[in-house]
Amino acid sequence: MNNFIFQNTTKLIFGKGSIASLTTEVPLDSKVLLTFGGGSVQKNGVYNQVIEALKDHHTIEFWGIEPNPTIETLRAAIALAKQESCDFVLAVGGGSVVDGSKLIAAGALFDGDAWDLVRKPSLYKSALPMAAVITLPATGSEMNRGAVISNKATKEKFSFFSNYPVFSVLDPETTFSLPPYQVACGLADTFVHVIEQYLTTTGQSPLMDRWAEGILQTIIEVAPKIKENQHDYESMATFMLSATMGLNGFIALGVSQDWATHMIGHELTALNGITHGHSLTIVLPGTMWILRGEKGDKILQYGKRVWGIEHSDREVAIRMIIDRTEEFFRSLGLKTRLHENGVGQETIDEIKKRFTERNLHLGENRSVDAHVAGEILDAVK
Amino acid sequence: MNNFIFQNTTKLIFGKGSIASLTTEVPLDSKVLLTFGGGSVQKNGVYNQVIEALKDHHTIEFWGIEPNPTIETLRAAIALAKQESCDFVLAVGGGSVVDGSKLIAAGALFDGDAWDLVRKPSLYKSALPMAAVITLPATGSEMNRGAVISNKATKEKFSFFSNYPVFSVLDPETTFSLPPYQVACGLADTFVHVIEQYLTTTGQSPLMDRWAEGILQTIIEVAPKIKENQHDYESMATFMLSATMGLNGFIALGVSQDWATHMIGHELTALNGITHGHSLTIVLPGTMWILRGEKGDKILQYGKRVWGIEHSDREVAIRMIIDRTEEFFRSLGLKTRLHENGVGQETIDEIKKRFTERNLHLGENRSVDAHVAGEILDAVK
Repeated sequence: MNNFIFQNTTKLIFGKGSIASLTTEVPLDSKVLLTFGGGSVQKNGVYNQVIEALKDHHTIEFWGIEPNPTIETLRAAIALAKQESCDFVLAVGGGSVVDGSKLIAAGALFDGDAWDLVRKPSLYKSALPMAAVITLPATGSEMNRGAVISNKATKEKFSFFSNYPVFSVLDPETTFSLPPYQVACGLADTFVHVIEQYLTTTGQSPLMDRWAEGILQTIIEVAPKIKENQHDYESMATFMLSATMGLNGFIALGVSQDWATHMIGHELTALNGITHGHSLTIVLPGTMWILRGEKGDKILQYGKRVWGIEHSDREVAIRMIIDRTEEFFRSLGLKTRLHENGVGQETIDEIKKRFTERNLHLGENRSVDAHVAGEILDAVK
Repeated sequence: MNNFIFQNTTKLIFGKGSIASLTTEVPLDSKVLLTFGGGSVQKNGVYNQVIEALKDHHTIEFWGIEPNPTIETLRAAIALAKQESCDFVLAVGGGSVVDGSKLIAAGALFDGDAWDLVRKPSLYKSALPMAAVITLPATGSEMNRGAVISNKATKEKFSFFSNYPVFSVLDPETTFSLPPYQVACGLADTFVHVIEQYLTTTGQSPLMDRWAEGILQTIIEVAPKIKENQHDYESMATFMLSATMGLNGFIALGVSQDWATHMIGHELTALNGITHGHSLTIVLPGTMWILRGEKGDKILQYGKRVWGIEHSDREVAIRMIIDRTEEFFRSLGLKTRLHENGVGQETIDEIKKRFTERNLHLGENRSVDAHVAGEILDAVK
């Protein structure tokens, strides 16, 4: 087990009716910037619940944070936060709204262009207190320090790290009306978040292995129930809890992490607009196959414990396990090949070019450079 | 899934060499009350490491917090903290030292007798910041708000809830020299902590079930390795992490909890001096058997997933699962019957009397009253 330091201060407020807790959780004397996406929260009643809970608070609204939040949009939100002297940011929406709001909270206290905060982590000093009402289980952003910010002009997508949300409100009922495609992508995103923290070196932590496998088993178990009935409270609650637990650090104690699949997936999103969770279901099978040399033992453990797959021939077993994983993604209604999403050779070439320019060496063993990233994408053409 | 609110603010600092981090983690301008047990930390080098790390800090030492810390001892520590105007408490030792230090930290700011804080939770308002260097994995006290305090005069033992430790330092190397009996009791304590949060209602949270089962599987897997070689860093690190994760709230999100076994076990400790973890290995088989009506479905899930036990006859299956659990406890070198620890009918009668006087109704269904507690103890005579 590796040495580690862990602290996650976010207060989770979970369950039906929990949006009402905003009344007491948001400091009454604060000037709150409420941040939203495209308007789905107006249709599903979440907006009304938030406004009702905060009726005695001073609030300013910012609308229009898009999926894969762009620096272009967030600059406008930061300008508003500064102009109105907001001192609290409450994100209401999915992971993109929460991610974007992390940069808004930091940008509001930064004397410069917020894109510099994204590109130069050392510039980040502090942020306004920020909290979330999450309506789309997927990114885990409601209980971690991370965000992913896109640049429309340069077609780039980078990670940004800020503070933990002060609190996050998770009411599973807010997910009932989500588009099924978003739910599928959220399930895939959660699954691959766990894989990135699990499918690495064997034997680092038997407990973290069990917990990672536990989330994977839970997602596999709950996915068909959700497909059948997205209004099943227990299933949606289980999905929502799994998404949060999948990326809040709880399964990462003392173990290596990968994230190569995510980094390659981010490029597919930046260049071709593929939904984040969907980009992962394409890249992961390639990552598993190309890196089977270094990841083989863990792939076999994953296959045996999560899928019950065993085979005397190591290569055959690994292929069966990858196929079974793809089959699961396809059962969600998602694709697992680049050509199925209209991605061609020019994107692969551009990603290789970018990885070369940035001199990237990704993965738990730093073995995923431009060449290997190309091999991974070639494997899932 | 039940609605829940969760927040655990403790910073975990885990791994070999981590005691050195005290230098920066303990505020330099604080006056630190260092609290210790009986002196084992002087033999295993932990004391020297702590003193070296804090050589530029202002420290006062209090020695002699015993297993099952007594209010009699803690009153003396509180008096010292007040007299010296300490403003930080650092516990160095096992769960008893950490538990006791939680009451010391609260008592230092309380204008009255600290036993009143234990008996009347509403009197608790605040506590000094408190942190821990934990040397015995077992109670999970290093990352939760709980403590258990004994009263020597009245032979009573009660829970007390305070703040989360600011931070806790866990260096697995500090456990190498623990007496094997303490390690066995720690393994049992961790196991039963998980059981108390798991062996309740079925279907509340598939994810929490998996995580609880994951800790149980890990403890079962690591116990024989520890018995063979207590200097195996990886095994002791796994045990240490499991003990903390077993009682820090991570496996209790949205699910019912039991704790009847602990409450009965506390009485065995208070009346007969049985080591806490050992009291649980005796009571748990009784709890499982007597409450098989309400816990049966979960016992069957536990048996199947953790032990691979299945049988077409429900009662037979339950008996096999309980027997297998006892067998595990006995493999640790612990007993599972009252008479093996010299406990007779008079103790059972006294416990029934106390439960009647306190009008207790314990367990996730509040079904464990004095009568049922008596049945549980009768079942493990």
